[in-house]
Amino acid sequence: MSVCAKSLKFSEYGEPTDVLQLVEEKLDSPKDKQVLVRILAAPINPADINTIQGKYPVKPKFPAIGGNECVAEVLEVGASVQKLQKGQHVVPFATGMGTWTTHALYNEDQLMPVSNNIGLAEAATITVNPCTAYRMLKDFVKLSPGECVIQNGANSGVGQAVHQLCKSWNLKSVGIVRDRPDINGLKDHLRNLGATEVLTEEELRTTTLFKSGSLPKPRLALNCVGGKSATEVGRQLADKGVHVTYGGMSREPVIAATAALIFKDIAFRGFWMTRWTKENALSEERMQMFAELCDLMLQKKFVAPVHELVPLEKFKEATVAALNFKGFTGKKYILDMRN
Amino acid sequence: MSVCAKSLKFSEYGEPTDVLQLVEEKLDSPKDKQVLVRILAAPINPADINTIQGKYPVKPKFPAIGGNECVAEVLEVGASVQKLQKGQHVVPFATGMGTWTTHALYNEDQLMPVSNNIGLAEAATITVNPCTAYRMLKDFVKLSPGECVIQNGANSGVGQAVHQLCKSWNLKSVGIVRDRPDINGLKDHLRNLGATEVLTEEELRTTTLFKSGSLPKPRLALNCVGGKSATEVGRQLADKGVHVTYGGMSREPVIAATAALIFKDIAFRGFWMTRWTKENALSEERMQMFAELCDLMLQKKFVAPVHELVPLEKFKEATVAALNFKGFTGKKYILDMRN
Repeated sequence: MSVCAKSLKFSEYGEPTDVLQLVEEKLDSPKDKQVLVRILAAPINPADINTIQGKYPVKPKFPAIGGNECVAEVLEVGASVQKLQKGQHVVPFATGMGTWTTHALYNEDQLMPVSNNIGLAEAATITVNPCTAYRMLKDFVKLSPGECVIQNGANSGVGQAVHQLCKSWNLKSVGIVRDRPDINGLKDHLRNLGATEVLTEEELRTTTLFKSGSLPKPRLALNCVGGKSATEVGRQLADKGVHVTYGGMSREPVIAATAALIFKDIAFRGFWMTRWTKENALSEERMQMFAELCDLMLQKKFVAPVHELVPLEKFKEATVAALNFKGFTGKKYILDMRN
Repeated sequence: MSVCAKSLKFSEYGEPTDVLQLVEEKLDSPKDKQVLVRILAAPINPADINTIQGKYPVKPKFPAIGGNECVAEVLEVGASVQKLQKGQHVVPFATGMGTWTTHALYNEDQLMPVSNNIGLAEAATITVNPCTAYRMLKDFVKLSPGECVIQNGANSGVGQAVHQLCKSWNLKSVGIVRDRPDINGLKDHLRNLGATEVLTEEELRTTTLFKSGSLPKPRLALNCVGGKSATEVGRQLADKGVHVTYGGMSREPVIAATAALIFKDIAFRGFWMTRWTKENALSEERMQMFAELCDLMLQKKFVAPVHELVPLEKFKEATVAALNFKGFTGKKYILDMRN
């Protein structure tokens, strides 16, 4: 078999609309441990855009195909491939594989099988946001059921995942979002996902939720905004709490007050999924994480973030929309390569 | 036996010169587990001043005697006292004991014996600065001989202790200080204590010490300044380095850059000796620490910070001098109660 792959490639850093090109290329049958896949769907994540702009610490080898996540269907396997077979759905098991393409040849060990019964959008977005949320909730503080987590950017991809995992794990979660015209609709959406409370940045400044004892003081705060918002979620932390930064949408740094560091023993940490994956690629913890996430997705206890499917040909509009500030906290754009 | 104790007491918060009063009081013979001591020397630490000002999280019960450190001589022991005897030198084993006094009645378990051969200034200042330096060097990063530590406020009491401990433990240490008229004298002093290099804040900004490989990139940065200085020492850290704040002389917070948190995995932490002591009061680690520090002091491998002995009656001048900004990074004032 040979297929014609249509790929979004770039050979220099720049704005995606300027440097991405839709390129056609013939792919031959897979050899040895190779697997030929047909990509069904691949999301556009903020880090993908930053990589193309040259603003991300991961530097691809040119020419490079954009994208890091996808769900794909196995079309054909090489002679030495043992664990994958035709028709099976797979997701990337490594990073930097270039997923914005209709077809690709990967090595068997770069792929992880997932149940074909998992929703397209859920499978296509499983390796970044849900894993980031999972690790941040597990690895910094040992939380017991009933404890509370606070986060800003609650409607980001990770934010939506955090609320769902907290619900599954019997943790309370308070989400902070910016005020907006449809604030009640957004609050309802996040509460439906599992948020215990959703507050605007303004409401957070005067809330008595924690002081009154309605909710236990959080020992974990998650931050993807920085600046004042990061300070405000940090102020709610109990002594010895951990403040974890995984993004910086406001482009402002995290301010760590001296008294919070010394007298409250607050730790200011950061989390980067790419690093964790590199350091734990073949770990038992990673297998356990994917098994648990897939299970939750199959049970419909975990859904993909709010998203829109976009045909590959409309990639320019989609990258512009994803670049938009609102794109970073709102809708996820997923390239749909099924036809 | 009964003695007349002269104590520096305060019954309200305010500037030490306004609220401290020299009070005379008769102390009777010690009962049961009590120990009557004659205080030989007691330093004036920044935290002591902040406590009197009401700016410190530790709130004493009024009327309170100032001071938290001292070296004292046992004058008389109560009937049930087992481990201490007349003539022995002791230091506080707890905090908030009120040491700015000529005599005091303490409980046996509030005191720790130290060798009478340890220098007066060394023994009087053992429980705060050397312990802070010791714990910060031990508890955040497992450092191996040859590794490097960077710190600002290198001429503070803790800073001088850090350089000496690093030398004893075969760690390299780079100290950062503010530029000043006698900068070369200060650099010599700190190098003599054990600093591998001493740089001014300005020199740090353009140094190639670490980039060139002359010194290994530090995995531990100690900060008692905050603001730009905290940022600059943090910038030198290797990936996964830890930035520990134990003071904030500039009154500016620590700025944690989003990229440092996420991509370099730098952790911003704080350390407070008072908390550590409460949490580890009777721990093996604490005994080990004091044994090691006393041993270094006996061997003259660890000396007290630059200091001046001041008679108790001159306490007003001494607290003013200690309050002075330079006091926080320069000379330590020690009340001398021997006559």
